[in-house]
Amino acid sequence: MNEHDPYPSRNGSLPAMLERLDPVVYARDWSSAPLSREQIHQYDRDGFLILDNLFSADDIRDCQREVERLRNDPALRTDPATITEPESDEVRSIFRVHQSSPVFAALIHNPRLQQVARFLLDDDIYIHQSRVNYKPGLRGKEFYWHSDFETWHVEDGMPRMRALSMSITLTENFSWNGSLLLIPGSQRCYVSCSGETPPDHFKSSLKKQELGVPDDDSLQELASRGGIATATGKPGSVIVFDCNTMHGSNGNITPFPRSNVFFVFNAVSNRVGKPFGNQPPRPDYICTRD
Amino acid sequence: MNEHDPYPSRNGSLPAMLERLDPVVYARDWSSAPLSREQIHQYDRDGFLILDNLFSADDIRDCQREVERLRNDPALRTDPATITEPESDEVRSIFRVHQSSPVFAALIHNPRLQQVARFLLDDDIYIHQSRVNYKPGLRGKEFYWHSDFETWHVEDGMPRMRALSMSITLTENFSWNGSLLLIPGSQRCYVSCSGETPPDHFKSSLKKQELGVPDDDSLQELASRGGIATATGKPGSVIVFDCNTMHGSNGNITPFPRSNVFFVFNAVSNRVGKPFGNQPPRPDYICTRD
Repeated sequence: MNEHDPYPSRNGSLPAMLERLDPVVYARDWSSAPLSREQIHQYDRDGFLILDNLFSADDIRDCQREVERLRNDPALRTDPATITEPESDEVRSIFRVHQSSPVFAALIHNPRLQQVARFLLDDDIYIHQSRVNYKPGLRGKEFYWHSDFETWHVEDGMPRMRALSMSITLTENFSWNGSLLLIPGSQRCYVSCSGETPPDHFKSSLKKQELGVPDDDSLQELASRGGIATATGKPGSVIVFDCNTMHGSNGNITPFPRSNVFFVFNAVSNRVGKPFGNQPPRPDYICTRD
Repeated sequence: MNEHDPYPSRNGSLPAMLERLDPVVYARDWSSAPLSREQIHQYDRDGFLILDNLFSADDIRDCQREVERLRNDPALRTDPATITEPESDEVRSIFRVHQSSPVFAALIHNPRLQQVARFLLDDDIYIHQSRVNYKPGLRGKEFYWHSDFETWHVEDGMPRMRALSMSITLTENFSWNGSLLLIPGSQRCYVSCSGETPPDHFKSSLKKQELGVPDDDSLQELASRGGIATATGKPGSVIVFDCNTMHGSNGNITPFPRSNVFFVFNAVSNRVGKPFGNQPPRPDYICTRD
């Protein structure tokens, strides 16, 4: 445990809503920004932004084919970086795809994505985590509300809020097939969670997270302030969101599956160190350390 | 088992998609209809219709208060007509509210609702079932896809498709808080389900239905033909839907609960008899027999 932890959580205390101590938009010079002023203000205010038309239909088809290939690769089925659904053998997530898949390795080098990440974090960047999420139709389970930063801080040792995620949608995201839900403005508040982290928590939390999730009162407070936004869109939309934006998604009983590829960019100055929680670091496929 | 069953299901056979043998709109004379021609055509085509502005804000407030009263009534907590969530003690449904609650008994006598039901079924009507559904915020579970008629036929002995449901929304139904999803056009097709009904099936199926639900292939076929419609709306909207329209709802991780009151009108000529399945009839609070 770190005595000077600015973002304490899961240390046996009661839940609390703490103020964010870090900027959301780090760049000060906006003159050559890769986003419009309106987009920058929106990201700063809401904690997320949706970018359309960054990829061609061919790019997206290649990615979709790659997801199918990965899902059906028998070698990956037994790889610890492949996470299955809590109640079935269906693939839920495949981690470190920027290393295991040439298609996604290429995708991550898209200049526009990199420019946006560098601008918002105002630093050199590296990939903290990458994964494909696959929410099957009919029996896709929910992802409960969480701030990614809370986990990355406690379990991975990410010091400050200077990271962001980009989720690239590979199927159409409708309001009814378990699309990403976000609470606008929630990035300004750090919800310190109760409980303590048990050993090997990631083995269950990646299937169904029950620790490191906000308490009911904090969540209601955040949602009553900011409401709920749904990230719907055609395949190839990019949802850029701050590491502390509260998000989750409902299950999916419709026959229309939902998949996306998810990259986390962290500022080089914000490299992970010793976890702030009481457990050893998570494996490399969840959290890059090299 | 009935040898001349036009709508066989759960009799040990493989799943099948059978043609509906009954009208959707029974009325032939539309000259004094309580609906517009467009609304009638829409109901016939889609298997559902949403009616707004039938109730005053005061009516809805009375109903909301009544739901709270019922949920907190200790006597009802232990009543078999009160169904809790599969993984908690939270109230999911309360049946026979047209008998147990004076507020809902009055609501059901709304002249417009009765006129619409009589018109569409072209017969005298009675209440086959009534209930309040309460989907709590944060941890509300899904209702998987089903045709109500399949259950009412197999478990209650409803002979033909000559019944309809009215769901009156008591909280705002957003796209993201587990609102009713329907497959337009699905009322034209009867999905015969595999499996057989075990004793006392209703005791588990009202918490989480796993039998009497369509097979994956039939569901995908219906959804690829008709798509998915979401019944969103302000409190007090009435969703009228045919007894065989395939419907369900996703879970609800948002803090905004969703409740509705639900009445089933059956044609007097279509009174329930001996169940078409292999089990004794369900209790009176689920299926009116007097």
